[in-house]
This record gives sequence, C-alpha cells and structure tokens, in this order.
Amino acid sequence: MPQLPNFGPIGELAVSEWIGTPPAPTMAELRGQVVAIEAFQMLCPGCVTHGLPQAARLQRDFGQDIVVFGLHTVFEHHAVMGVEALRVFLAEFRTPFPVAVDEPRGVGLPVTMQRLGLQGTPTLLLVDRNGDIRFRGLGTVEDIALGVAVGTLIGS
Amino acid sequence: MPQLPNFGPIGELAVSEWIGTPPAPTMAELRGQVVAIEAFQMLCPGCVTHGLPQAARLQRDFGQDIVVFGLHTVFEHHAVMGVEALRVFLAEFRTPFPVAVDEPRGVGLPVTMQRLGLQGTPTLLLVDRNGDIRFRGLGTVEDIALGVAVGTLIGS
Amino acid sequence: MPQLPNFGPIGELAVSEWIGTPPAPTMAELRGQVVAIEAFQMLCPGCVTHGLPQAARLQRDFGQDIVVFGLHTVFEHHAVMGVEALRVFLAEFRTPFPVAVDEPRGVGLPVTMQRLGLQGTPTLLLVDRNGDIRFRGLGTVEDIALGVAVGTLIGS
Amino acid sequence: MPQLPNFGPIGELAVSEWIGTPPAPTMAELRGQVVAIEAFQMLCPGCVTHGLPQAARLQRDFGQDIVVFGLHTVFEHHAVMGVEALRVFLAEFRTPFPVAVDEPRGVGLPVTMQRLGLQGTPTLLLVDRNGDIRFRGLGTVEDIALGVAVGTLIGS
Repeated sequence: MPQLPNFGPIGELAVSEWIGTPPAPTMAELRGQVVAIEAFQMLCPGCVTHGLPQAARLQRDFGQDIVVFGLHTVFEHHAVMGVEALRVFLAEFRTPFPVAVDEPRGVGLPVTMQRLGLQGTPTLLLVDRNGDIRFRGLGTVEDIALGVAVGTLIGS
Repeated sequence: MPQLPNFGPIGELAVSEWIGTPPAPTMAELRGQVVAIEAFQMLCPGCVTHGLPQAARLQRDFGQDIVVFGLHTVFEHHAVMGVEALRVFLAEFRTPFPVAVDEPRGVGLPVTMQRLGLQGTPTLLLVDRNGDIRFRGLGTVEDIALGVAVGTLIGS
Repeated sequence: MPQLPNFGPIGELAVSEWIGTPPAPTMAELRGQVVAIEAFQMLCPGCVTHGLPQAARLQRDFGQDIVVFGLHTVFEHHAVMGVEALRVFLAEFRTPFPVAVDEPRGVGLPVTMQRLGLQGTPTLLLVDRNGDIRFRGLGTVEDIALGVAVGTLIGS
Repeated sequence: MPQLPNFGPIGELAVSEWIGTPPAPTMAELRGQVVAIEAFQMLCPGCVTHGLPQAARLQRDFGQDIVVFGLHTVFEHHAVMGVEALRVFLAEFRTPFPVAVDEPRGVGLPVTMQRLGLQGTPTLLLVDRNGDIRFRGLGTVEDIALGVAVGTLIGS
C-alpha cells in the first residue's frame, strides 16, 4: 500500500449533468489537487450503506485537503435511476458533495464507467495531483485503508 | 492534517517489561520505520472498545508498513492492573501486537506517560522515521483520520 | 411497555398492488396471527438504513411466529417512487418479505397512511391476533423494545 | 421461541458478596418478578463488548418491568479477577446494575455456575415470576430475540 500503483491518467469524465456544483469542474482544472471520486448507483445497497457514507465522512473530515465528488454510473435499471430520481435521492440522503452524472448511452455501461473499466459499484477512485488514478477500490474499502491511501497522496 | 505537526523526539521509553516480543526493541532500533504506539489501560473502557481494536486493525492491514505496539500506562487502580492481570487480558482479548509496560512509580503516572505528557487513555502516538512524534490522538480517533496520518508518514 | 396500549382495529389496508406474494392476504385472513407492518418509502434514509433491515431481522428470526410485510406509503416525490422503481429497489436490497403498495391518491398521503394517521416513515406497526394495533413506532425503534412488544403479543 | 421451555427452578444463588445493592435480594424475594441475570467474567471479551452492554440496555429500557443483575462467575484466572479488581471494572465501565459474586471454590467453576450447569460466559438467564429458568443464552444473543423472550415472560 505505501507505494500506490499508478493506473494512468484519468482524463476527462464524460458528464451529462452536474448536480450541486456551479460551475462544474473539469479534471484539468482539478490538477494539483488530490481528488476522490465515489462511483455509485442510487439503488445499489453497498453504495447506500457503505460507499456514500464513507465518502461523506472523507468530505467532512478532509474536505479542506482533497476534492470529493460522486459519479452516478448507472449501468442497470436505467428507467428508475434517472436524474429526477437521483436529485430526490441526494436531497433525502443529504449527500454533502456534488455529483456528476456519467453520460448514459441508453443501455449498458455509461461512457466514463466503460472507458475507465470500472467493474461495478461502489468503486472509489483516488486521483493524484498529476491527474493519475492511484487507487481503485471496488466494494467495501476499510476506512483505515482509505485514509492511508489519501494520506499517501496528500503527503507526496 | 496533511502537514502533521512535529511534537519533537520521542526518546526512549521507560519499560519495566515487554509482553509478547523477544527481543524488545528500542526506539533507536526502530529509527527508519513509522511506529504506532497505543497507550492504554486494561480496565479503561475506551481502550477496550475502541483504541485496542483500532490498533489491531492497523496492525492487521498495515503491519508490513509500520510497527504497532501497545504501552500499558497504568495511572490509577495500580493494584488490579499489574503484569499478571495484563497477561491474562492480552491473551483473552487476543491482542495481536506486543505490549510494553510503562515503568511504574508506585503511585500516579508511570515514567513514560509523565515524560511524554500524555493526558489520559487511550492515546495513540505516531512516530515518524526520524523518531519524532507527529500525531497524538486522545480518546476516539476516527479510522479515516488515523489512516491519513499514517499514510502521510509512510509516504513522506 | 408490558401492557401495550390498544390503538383500535387496523381494518383493511387499501392496497393498489402487492409485490412478492400470491395470493395477497387480507387483514381479516390474518386474524389469529401477530402481524408486523413496516411502513416505508424507498428513498427514506431511516427506512433504508434502519427500518427495513430491522423488519428483515424480525422476519428471519421470528417468521415462524409472526407475519411480516412492508407497506410502501409514498407521501412525497411520487414521480420517482412508483411501482417500477420499487420493484428494482426490493430486488436490489433483497427485501425478504412481501410489500403492499398503499393506494396513492395522486398527491399527498396515500389512503391507508392517512386513515391510520401515520406521522411519517419509517413506522412499524404491530397488530395483535384480534386485528387491533398495539404498537406504533415512528423512526428508530430499538431492537430490544421491538422484541419485547412482539413477545408480549405472541405470549398473550 | 413463543413457547419458552422450562429449565426448572433456579433456586437460591450462592453469593459470596453483592456489589452495588443493599440489601441483597434473594431469589425467593424476587418471586413474582421477571429477572434477567447476566453471568459474566470481567476479562471475557464477549462479556465486555456484548453481554454486559446488552444487559445495560435492557436495564435502561425495561428496568421498570424486570429486575436485572450480574453474576460474576469466575472459572479461570481467579487470581486477577477477584473482588477488588471487579469493583474497579464495574466502576470504570459504569455498570448500571448490581452484581453478585458467585461463590468461589478456589479452583474451577464457582458454586452457582456449576449447580446451574452454565457452559461459559457470557450466559444470559431469564427467570419467570415463578422462579423458573425460561431462557439460557450462551454467547451472542440478538437483541430482538432477547426482547421477545422478555416480552413473553412479562406478558404471561
């Protein structure tokens, strides 16, 4: 863990809409900052009970040091996880960070999820100050492990 | 948090006995490694329910990267927290790291606890590769915060 | 608590649809059994993180002794909590008991919720063998308290 | 579960000392009341992290309806779990109910533990209004299950 692998540049996200942030940041504009991206679906149990609350804790405690946002990567049940439903979900669950909607393609994986090769939700991505992906956590990531990865990127 | 303060050199611990580790390390011998020290008392509720289990998680997940051990800093109820009782406690709770017994002085604070100015138990100390104390967490430390501090020290 | 109050007969529920149970029971048919009804909304955080998991534990451990089902009482954001979305939610979260959809009236409170005077979601109702409501728990109900109420009704 | 088995009369406990309650009750004096007895050892992890906190929740929420107390059944490591150590433990952990010390016999099982055939700690016993043992829970008892058993005894 101390030496985090480098999964290469994240590039720009394909986002159809941002919720909760004007103006919408580009990854280029975030260069120089450590970024945490919580890829989730609003009706994914592991996202609702683990991933999103964990990202919210990260935002609460280290929002001064890193940028945290969500990425809504709908790859199933598209009809009931549209933007209108997502807005209600984010408001009801009081999600404290902005959320980008991964550009849908009608069926199957949305554009960013496919390009980054994400295997499912939740997936937590950490991006270093150079724009490179340095951590990909699928499913349950322990808080200590998340912290160590974040600390490694902040401190380097 | 990203820039951890420097509380100065930890110096050598005054230890009357080590449990669970031959040979006993000195802080000088640990130079070059990141060290986590969980200062606790065996009959302190916050230590039993939070501090020691957290240190055990740290040891389990990052024992390759940092050195974790306990420091039994008995400052009250000395008669019932002696070494014999401590050995039973550590065995029953399956504490997975070695424990140093802070040198008692009959009454009041033991030698190391007083010299380091620890305010109570549990206190988690992180020591950097130079032997300097960089983190002092009294009471409940969040797992993410602990991880960030550890990661900062590992990565620097 | 030992003497549970009697809130009067529950009467029949107004249900537009049942999910997960053929044939749909009526309250009259359930006479003679103790019944637990978890009134919830699929995008209500307290329902998702507390109420529904608790009802699932009750079903798992005492499904032989009492009848457990859900009641989807949508009183806000009707457009995104329709039956299609609910079916996805119940499947994804592996809800282990049948769910009745409280008959909607287009806007505001659905029929059963209004008739029973439910104050919000989650609300857990316990119905005794005579069809009388004996417990109404709004928000977080402790597991022990739920168990005591259930045990009181089972044992009487 | 709804029909709780009857393990027979509890009889009188052999108690060398009571902590936290003058005057000490006898089981005969408690006839007519439902009684919960948490058999524990102060250095037993399952007791400290699960059994005693659960009994404390039971006392907090249903102390009006049932009598809760602890029974310190030391069957190992006698030298470090004596009464002096127990007093410190109970004070530090703020145990909210009285504790009876099961009469020791120097080595092995104490008198009451052996007579009742308790298999280990923690064991939660529920005694009905007639003085009969109706529930014996070894290890982790779920809160709902405990509540159902308590409710069954209260309601009958």
